[in-house]
Amino acid sequence: MKEVFDYIDAHQEQYIQWLQDLCRMPSVAAQNRGMKETADRVMSDLQKNISADVQLVSTDGYPVVFGEVKGSGKKTLSFYNHYDVQPEDPIEMWDEPPFASNIVDGKLIARGSADNKGNLVARIAAVHAYQQVHGELPLSVKFVVEGEEEIGSPNLEGFAEKNKELLKADGCVWEFGYKNADGRQQVSLGVKGMAYVELVSKGANTDLHSANAAVVENPAWRLIWALQSIKDDSNHVNIPGFYEDVVATTDEDDQLIADLIYSEEETKQQLEINKFVGDVTGDQLKEQLIFSPTCNICGIDSGYTGEGAKTVLPSEARVKVDFRLVPNQDPYKVVDQLRKHLDAHGYEDIEIKTMGLEHPARTEPSDPLAKSVISATKEVMEMEPTVMPMSPGTGPMYELCQKLGIPAVSVGVGNFASNNHAPNENILIEDYISGIKVIAQLMEEYAES
Amino acid sequence: MKEVFDYIDAHQEQYIQWLQDLCRMPSVAAQNRGMKETADRVMSDLQKNISADVQLVSTDGYPVVFGEVKGSGKKTLSFYNHYDVQPEDPIEMWDEPPFASNIVDGKLIARGSADNKGNLVARIAAVHAYQQVHGELPLSVKFVVEGEEEIGSPNLEGFAEKNKELLKADGCVWEFGYKNADGRQQVSLGVKGMAYVELVSKGANTDLHSANAAVVENPAWRLIWALQSIKDDSNHVNIPGFYEDVVATTDEDDQLIADLIYSEEETKQQLEINKFVGDVTGDQLKEQLIFSPTCNICGIDSGYTGEGAKTVLPSEARVKVDFRLVPNQDPYKVVDQLRKHLDAHGYEDIEIKTMGLEHPARTEPSDPLAKSVISATKEVMEMEPTVMPMSPGTGPMYELCQKLGIPAVSVGVGNFASNNHAPNENILIEDYISGIKVIAQLMEEYAES
Repeated sequence: MKEVFDYIDAHQEQYIQWLQDLCRMPSVAAQNRGMKETADRVMSDLQKNISADVQLVSTDGYPVVFGEVKGSGKKTLSFYNHYDVQPEDPIEMWDEPPFASNIVDGKLIARGSADNKGNLVARIAAVHAYQQVHGELPLSVKFVVEGEEEIGSPNLEGFAEKNKELLKADGCVWEFGYKNADGRQQVSLGVKGMAYVELVSKGANTDLHSANAAVVENPAWRLIWALQSIKDDSNHVNIPGFYEDVVATTDEDDQLIADLIYSEEETKQQLEINKFVGDVTGDQLKEQLIFSPTCNICGIDSGYTGEGAKTVLPSEARVKVDFRLVPNQDPYKVVDQLRKHLDAHGYEDIEIKTMGLEHPARTEPSDPLAKSVISATKEVMEMEPTVMPMSPGTGPMYELCQKLGIPAVSVGVGNFASNNHAPNENILIEDYISGIKVIAQLMEEYAES
Repeated sequence: MKEVFDYIDAHQEQYIQWLQDLCRMPSVAAQNRGMKETADRVMSDLQKNISADVQLVSTDGYPVVFGEVKGSGKKTLSFYNHYDVQPEDPIEMWDEPPFASNIVDGKLIARGSADNKGNLVARIAAVHAYQQVHGELPLSVKFVVEGEEEIGSPNLEGFAEKNKELLKADGCVWEFGYKNADGRQQVSLGVKGMAYVELVSKGANTDLHSANAAVVENPAWRLIWALQSIKDDSNHVNIPGFYEDVVATTDEDDQLIADLIYSEEETKQQLEINKFVGDVTGDQLKEQLIFSPTCNICGIDSGYTGEGAKTVLPSEARVKVDFRLVPNQDPYKVVDQLRKHLDAHGYEDIEIKTMGLEHPARTEPSDPLAKSVISATKEVMEMEPTVMPMSPGTGPMYELCQKLGIPAVSVGVGNFASNNHAPNENILIEDYISGIKVIAQLMEEYAES
């Protein structure tokens, strides 16, 4: 592999340029910005740079870019990525323009740099470098690049059902991966599921002068009381049945948890917080992060929120809530339970808009793909990676992989301070380069496994 | 008075034009828009149209426009009004542009038409008509027109303390007044007080990917739990001591309540609601509207509130809350009680920003000014007005009037469907014209009382 690594080092500038170019293309699925242009660009990158057979597979939403490169070995490794990114707001909190792709102090700062264009381009670059040095890949690779990950992949399940042949693979490298605060690479063996909903509470048919508050009900208050009924300040989700399908951790899980390093003090300093939820520390903190389902408010909005004081009784209140789910919670069931809970508490009038449903998914640590990823990472990074039994993040892994019998493992070029979904999203250039090498190494190791 | 009434009828177009012109000037104190231009315009209207001696009295905020016209009688009647208006958002819900001053189906639709420019110009027009017919007024009048009513009059108390001589009067006609849904004019004998606060809850120093919600506290949840601790779904304010200074209603109050007509079914239909807060009806509903203090959410905001789904853990959450207070609650004391309550519930970190404090105020029904207003209204409207012992709305009445021994009564040109503080704010042209006549009649009756 030395030749391939040398080739990657010698062509750094080119690979950085590829990534900068892609990060300069806004592709915000939630706002339908730049989606077609970016899908076309990924198609042409796969075709021109690594001679992939490509196709744009239509869905009921944004299309999936599919690319395939045949290799000499029997195995097929697939890469799941996405070309869409999160909205960039609050834009005033960015130090660099979010789509300028500026490099500052060894960091590429751009919306999408860590989530997920850095990983996509690193994988293309790894295939490219291997091809330039060896001519042919040691295994076949497939690229599955969707455009709706950041809005909950609403059409990926349908895509997976219709395109089982395209998806066939021995293993799948999942979209993301990070370095910890302690410098160790993380390898994750699963993802949490998700039920993303918007709750809408309505009062009078128009905003009113707040003098009416003595007699006309305020939908913001009703929404607050409904939310309180869902989760109180003990942080416990009070929806009946919410926890009933949660699988207890195994001894192996507990061992992986114990081996994990979570830099508590560093995290608290970085985020300027003085404790963690529930005031937990140590293994309990790590277990909570990885194995606890959550109920999080992503956004809440009602009435007058501008400058100064306006005395208004709002006519409507909205909240966006994401539930992160763990095996074997079922997102469809959770939404049903939520509806029943609201009804039982007298909130029949509060509407639930379902905005994304994803099952949790896991791969066993003993799986050959898991072993190859761990080994390739160790080889390149020259230290043991951290193995996460499951990522606290979410993705449509179940539909694309486990449901079809394909193991999936996450490794990638982000880091603990990459600010995914937040201002100043970034990756370190050195992580990007070593991430390219990890994928090159993995192709060789997994081909032989 | 017939001559004056005839003059008013004959010069309707001119008086409507005066009002349209003033409503075309945005003067949003909360956003510092058009304030100077509008104050200057009110000055010149008072000077040119009714030959008032005017002065612009500076305060720590927007200045107060003061105008005085001497009359033949000994009495002095003052008019309190304001030249600022509420912000116009949500602008997309207006049928006419908020500052176009369009007249549609006999209604002038404009931000500020009801609150409060319609009343200000009606009073100027009444003085003008009386002068044109009789040469001299039967009493002296003073105009006190402030620019910060819609942001809680933060500097009016200071103004009142420094300008006691200017404010001296036998009685004050307060800024607002409405016709009920049943067509009867309302005369109000007081206002509720107010404590307007913004609560700010902070979490991590940046928005985070919501995968972190398992371990990093969400300031929106904390704000919701804090709000729930302040007022639960029984609608009771749970701040210790909040109700302790509330004065019980007298038999006279109960009689005024019993005499009031509140069109429950019409209100429910108009607002498309199916019940009132606490499911009350009849006298209990009216008493609640007038004599209950409130705790209302004017606006709440956190995280991502745009289109689609964004999985974010917000770094901050804010809520604007107005407490409407009744005699003898003290707004300063309420804010202290709120601080103590939050601290006692573990929300020491939630910041309280005080945005407006006003005392409640009342005038007795037996006061000569109250009697003159009731009588003048009856004379012009040809029916008994509804007498409200106190308006459910708020204003700086206490500082300008009761504190200086001046009785204050509200009567004006708005109506039940005027949409104050809301989209499509409007008044009926016919109410505007009869409102001018009421003030003309009142000047004569009060001069003789």
